[in-house]
Amino acid sequence: MPNIPKTCKAAILPDYGKPLEIREVPIPEVQDGGILVKVEMAGVCGSDLHILNGNLGIKAPPPFIMGHETIGRIVKLGRGRTHDAAGEPLNIGDRIIWAHADCYDCYYCDIVRKPMLCEHRIGYGMAPPSELRGGFAEYEYVVPVTKVVKIPDEVTEEEAIGVACAFRSVMAAFEKLNGVGYGDTVVIQGAGPIGLYSLLLAREGGAGKTIVIGAPANRLELAKKWGANHVINIDEIKDPAERKAIVMELTNGKGPELVVECSGFPPAFAEGVDMVQKGGRYLVIGLTSPVPVTFTPYALVQKNLQIIGSGGAIIRHFYKALQFIKTHKDRYSFADIVTKKYKLEEINEALADMKAGTQIKPVIDNRNR
Amino acid sequence: MPNIPKTCKAAILPDYGKPLEIREVPIPEVQDGGILVKVEMAGVCGSDLHILNGNLGIKAPPPFIMGHETIGRIVKLGRGRTHDAAGEPLNIGDRIIWAHADCYDCYYCDIVRKPMLCEHRIGYGMAPPSELRGGFAEYEYVVPVTKVVKIPDEVTEEEAIGVACAFRSVMAAFEKLNGVGYGDTVVIQGAGPIGLYSLLLAREGGAGKTIVIGAPANRLELAKKWGANHVINIDEIKDPAERKAIVMELTNGKGPELVVECSGFPPAFAEGVDMVQKGGRYLVIGLTSPVPVTFTPYALVQKNLQIIGSGGAIIRHFYKALQFIKTHKDRYSFADIVTKKYKLEEINEALADMKAGTQIKPVIDNRNR
Amino acid sequence: MPNIPKTCKAAILPDYGKPLEIREVPIPEVQDGGILVKVEMAGVCGSDLHILNGNLGIKAPPPFIMGHETIGRIVKLGRGRTHDAAGEPLNIGDRIIWAHADCYDCYYCDIVRKPMLCEHRIGYGMAPPSELRGGFAEYEYVVPVTKVVKIPDEVTEEEAIGVACAFRSVMAAFEKLNGVGYGDTVVIQGAGPIGLYSLLLAREGGAGKTIVIGAPANRLELAKKWGANHVINIDEIKDPAERKAIVMELTNGKGPELVVECSGFPPAFAEGVDMVQKGGRYLVIGLTSPVPVTFTPYALVQKNLQIIGSGGAIIRHFYKALQFIKTHKDRYSFADIVTKKYKLEEINEALADMKAGTQIKPVIDNRNR
Amino acid sequence: MPNIPKTCKAAILPDYGKPLEIREVPIPEVQDGGILVKVEMAGVCGSDLHILNGNLGIKAPPPFIMGHETIGRIVKLGRGRTHDAAGEPLNIGDRIIWAHADCYDCYYCDIVRKPMLCEHRIGYGMAPPSELRGGFAEYEYVVPVTKVVKIPDEVTEEEAIGVACAFRSVMAAFEKLNGVGYGDTVVIQGAGPIGLYSLLLAREGGAGKTIVIGAPANRLELAKKWGANHVINIDEIKDPAERKAIVMELTNGKGPELVVECSGFPPAFAEGVDMVQKGGRYLVIGLTSPVPVTFTPYALVQKNLQIIGSGGAIIRHFYKALQFIKTHKDRYSFADIVTKKYKLEEINEALADMKAGTQIKPVIDNRNR
Repeated sequence: MPNIPKTCKAAILPDYGKPLEIREVPIPEVQDGGILVKVEMAGVCGSDLHILNGNLGIKAPPPFIMGHETIGRIVKLGRGRTHDAAGEPLNIGDRIIWAHADCYDCYYCDIVRKPMLCEHRIGYGMAPPSELRGGFAEYEYVVPVTKVVKIPDEVTEEEAIGVACAFRSVMAAFEKLNGVGYGDTVVIQGAGPIGLYSLLLAREGGAGKTIVIGAPANRLELAKKWGANHVINIDEIKDPAERKAIVMELTNGKGPELVVECSGFPPAFAEGVDMVQKGGRYLVIGLTSPVPVTFTPYALVQKNLQIIGSGGAIIRHFYKALQFIKTHKDRYSFADIVTKKYKLEEINEALADMKAGTQIKPVIDNRNR
Repeated sequence: MPNIPKTCKAAILPDYGKPLEIREVPIPEVQDGGILVKVEMAGVCGSDLHILNGNLGIKAPPPFIMGHETIGRIVKLGRGRTHDAAGEPLNIGDRIIWAHADCYDCYYCDIVRKPMLCEHRIGYGMAPPSELRGGFAEYEYVVPVTKVVKIPDEVTEEEAIGVACAFRSVMAAFEKLNGVGYGDTVVIQGAGPIGLYSLLLAREGGAGKTIVIGAPANRLELAKKWGANHVINIDEIKDPAERKAIVMELTNGKGPELVVECSGFPPAFAEGVDMVQKGGRYLVIGLTSPVPVTFTPYALVQKNLQIIGSGGAIIRHFYKALQFIKTHKDRYSFADIVTKKYKLEEINEALADMKAGTQIKPVIDNRNR
Repeated sequence: MPNIPKTCKAAILPDYGKPLEIREVPIPEVQDGGILVKVEMAGVCGSDLHILNGNLGIKAPPPFIMGHETIGRIVKLGRGRTHDAAGEPLNIGDRIIWAHADCYDCYYCDIVRKPMLCEHRIGYGMAPPSELRGGFAEYEYVVPVTKVVKIPDEVTEEEAIGVACAFRSVMAAFEKLNGVGYGDTVVIQGAGPIGLYSLLLAREGGAGKTIVIGAPANRLELAKKWGANHVINIDEIKDPAERKAIVMELTNGKGPELVVECSGFPPAFAEGVDMVQKGGRYLVIGLTSPVPVTFTPYALVQKNLQIIGSGGAIIRHFYKALQFIKTHKDRYSFADIVTKKYKLEEINEALADMKAGTQIKPVIDNRNR
Repeated sequence: MPNIPKTCKAAILPDYGKPLEIREVPIPEVQDGGILVKVEMAGVCGSDLHILNGNLGIKAPPPFIMGHETIGRIVKLGRGRTHDAAGEPLNIGDRIIWAHADCYDCYYCDIVRKPMLCEHRIGYGMAPPSELRGGFAEYEYVVPVTKVVKIPDEVTEEEAIGVACAFRSVMAAFEKLNGVGYGDTVVIQGAGPIGLYSLLLAREGGAGKTIVIGAPANRLELAKKWGANHVINIDEIKDPAERKAIVMELTNGKGPELVVECSGFPPAFAEGVDMVQKGGRYLVIGLTSPVPVTFTPYALVQKNLQIIGSGGAIIRHFYKALQFIKTHKDRYSFADIVTKKYKLEEINEALADMKAGTQIKPVIDNRNR
């Protein structure tokens, strides 16, 4: 049993727009059902840039410990916390990831059966420092009702870290499709982690051709390594009409059966609707900031389109994403998503690199700490 | 066997924006597989107003015979045309309705399996006068590849006329839902024929509460007669925020599980997205003119919405709509949709009344001709 | 606050095949999250006859308090039990019904997301007398993790009692259909509560024609009152081939698009498969005892059939069924399902009447107790 | 333009149970819409063994030319036959495969929209010799209403031949699944062409683990080469209980989420139902002979199973299967399914080898003829 300190270091956002500060914070008591973990790895997410500036749809008042993508190693289990959501036993030393703490006791959880819409959701990465509910820290506290899953032994931290945010969201989104069509063409707008995982699920869902539209070049390189048949670099092909022309040429003039929005860039929406094949589908995952766009809904009727929005995920999707990595390790170099590792004290540098777009998934690596 | 004349009267649009003119046109030879019908009844459609002015998405150069919602009585059957799409025998004197002539021989018909997207579709109501492919006439020619279905004996022309355009489109749209939820609340935007038939399929699909938003009062009266639990008159409640507040109050603060757009009014789109419950669905049927709107796609992700666009229908939906009328006659007064009957020579008056919104479904009634 | 006694009367199965005995049992302490209810009404279920003789698939050793369909009035709320599964506040005096206590913490609850398959399910109606978890009693104890919903004020006990077992199962089953086809013909095998509620959801899901096959006459009378277009009395038409011939005649020689098995009679399975239309669906709900049948699976391939088995339900379905009753009260006389009321002391008589098939839903009525 | 002879050689079944005879038969006139092809390759199918003995569900009186899996090279196009079902132009010299000739003009084609249930289907491989509608011949006549698709240039005859029967059926079946679950375990019963293609669509639909149960060893070798994670040889493990135990061990005691029946062996049905995970699905493709089995339908209710039967396919599935081969050539050695090639005159030897099970897909190879 490891010796648990009374306090630990954490990276705190003091106020919107300010750099994070490393401070010493108290480690809370572990309640019945709660779990204390040593943070092994914490991912920096595109949405952290919005959180930093108070631009995300969902908000909380600073100061708070940031970081909502974490792999933790269990150091203490609260009473009654004996197994994970898949029924596997939990022990000190196990590596886990977790979902939001949804209540499983409200209209959206129990009647609608979509806990990602829970009205009492407790999230991670925006909580007061005393609650230690953020990943940019040495330890993190997983509150009692939080669903967790163990990381399979075969899966490394570099491979698993993307599951904590991007991949579980992509898994939740793709499940809403009820199948990618065998042999269909799929266009993916965006080449960040959301786009890259979407590429994999499109390919492994039966797509015949995949086209990734995004930037910069290093992300597109990974897309090609992971099997994208074509990539379109938006830094080079800046005109949407020109991009559409390329896609049309690649699809026999018909457009793709499925477009997946993973860009977070609102004007991409009209571009996706414009490009998708008649009778096709448009899966929207990345548009997390409330920016209006101009769009002609006549296209929905004329082309008989289906648009599916997907935000969030539940523990099922964390589990399914981990299983997918475990069973597809031989096909894809999942660890390549982590392009640079930083110390906790380098968190502001990691955020700056994320903003510059030079890294795909920067991570805080505490493993040797 | 009736005596078929060489020519007949037809109402022709001479040029965009001009009144229709009654002219004598030739009756074409009936080819193998073709059908000549005496027009019994022809409906005036909201989209006729767009066609009149050249504002519809789909266009053809005038002059042409207008009218795309017709009930015809068979006067001549081309060789090989022995039965309808449901396998029922066809005979002189039978009443039929029909779909567009889709080719069943192109990528969209055979591979995608959505003939409403057919690339070689032959439509009715925009063809050159010599082809006699329009309903505002004494006779109409149904070209060989057109799928037709017989009207059941139990169903009158007044009951069936809505099937020829609005109801079959609504049937096609509701099939895409894979079920309305039992006990769910459904908001219907629009109280014209599309909205009224949507009300019926919502109710008979299991909806617990139905709310129709539209105008004018006579349409809302029929909505109430057909079982709408609540109606909101947009002539009285002009502010979308106020309408939303009413809907929220009627739905326990949650919004409806399903919104159906049947208004043809582009700003309704943002209102529907705004109003629908988290995790809900939005079925868009009425937006047939290419007008841009401003909209925040973030709502798709935040609320996990599904938007389903539906345009057109195939013969299956004509058949299903007719069956529905036959089996639900005891529950609904289907004939009430026809609020006024006109002679063929009164076609411009019928179009003017449609424009004024004083009638729900004006029809040209040739039965005593 | 009512005065809660220390003990109450309960009907206990002393041993398989023996009559129930009314005994005085202790009322347990109400734990955090638990609820003590006064039993207002308890339904006698067809499966009680199997339980009585130890023939049900699921088993427990006697003695136990029987009764798994209960409406309870809250007399004590454990700490933390403040609202029902739909988020409505719970108070002393409210009427509730409830689901099994599924753990929401195992592979089937959290990963598969089908709590009806929960590996740690705590049921009602087979528990040791000291746990007071059975409806044939004066009081019943609802254990902490059990999901509950309030009965709407507009709904009476006679209307609601069927929700506690048959109707919630039927709701769960029909949701798996993703829509009954508009205008389709539905055959229902069995005219007990499962069959009667299936009739309603078929009708209100859009069916054009409904045919109920069952017995005895009083059940078929209610089926007709609830809108069945045709009934076939198996006491009169004993030969399956003859029944099939009638159904074929009613369906233009094609058979029904959907058959719903609600009979609990294993040979009905082959009859359903034989009768269903090519391309059709077969929903199996009633076959709860493990009896083998002979059947030709070639029919699945030849006719392109889909067979959907459904057992159990979750709180969503209790809620949806109650909403359905509330919103469809004007269409159906839901209370007619309760054909006779008995005192708790008359439980053996109620069970005997169930066995004789003379009643549809016999209930223990404690309301004046 | 090739010189078309008046007659050609064909292998004719003279009577049930007799060896095929090579006879000279007339080559029919090419009607409008018809196509005459030189047979390049014709596959021998497992069902040919049933046809030979008159044991198949579908029957026709001998004598007839056998062979229902053909790749033909166009030698003459009837008037009006200008393009394939995907809209691609057709020319003399193109290689095509085709579906049955469904009428696209009956209740099942037009209303139910499942042409595999067509009431007027014209098939291949059981027609009178004078009609030249069988693949075991030098030429074959494709009748006018038959839908055809071109084989992409990138795909060889060895790769494409399986599409003409097994693969298109598997594609049709898997489409009914609406997605294989990402990371799920899939058990495939049977290792013939149906089983092998099912393995591919399971893998490429996202399965995490695939287990193939079948024989003989050479088929299982190919299954492993194509990525099966585990194979179970039924010649070695003869006891179903033992096979189930192995599957349970490989699935953490839970069983597979999906079982696919591809064996054609009726007792496999009960084994599949027994093995599938609670809440799982069972896809039945291979059971094409009408043999009764004993089975306990209680399992459907208890385990909440879904059983999907699938027989036949339409041209969409031929097209999708060809596209799949084209886009997945780098992942799988599709040509390996053809294990031996025979001359037309060796047809009885090919049938004998099929019966002995020594070959996976024996083919008649006319390419050098």
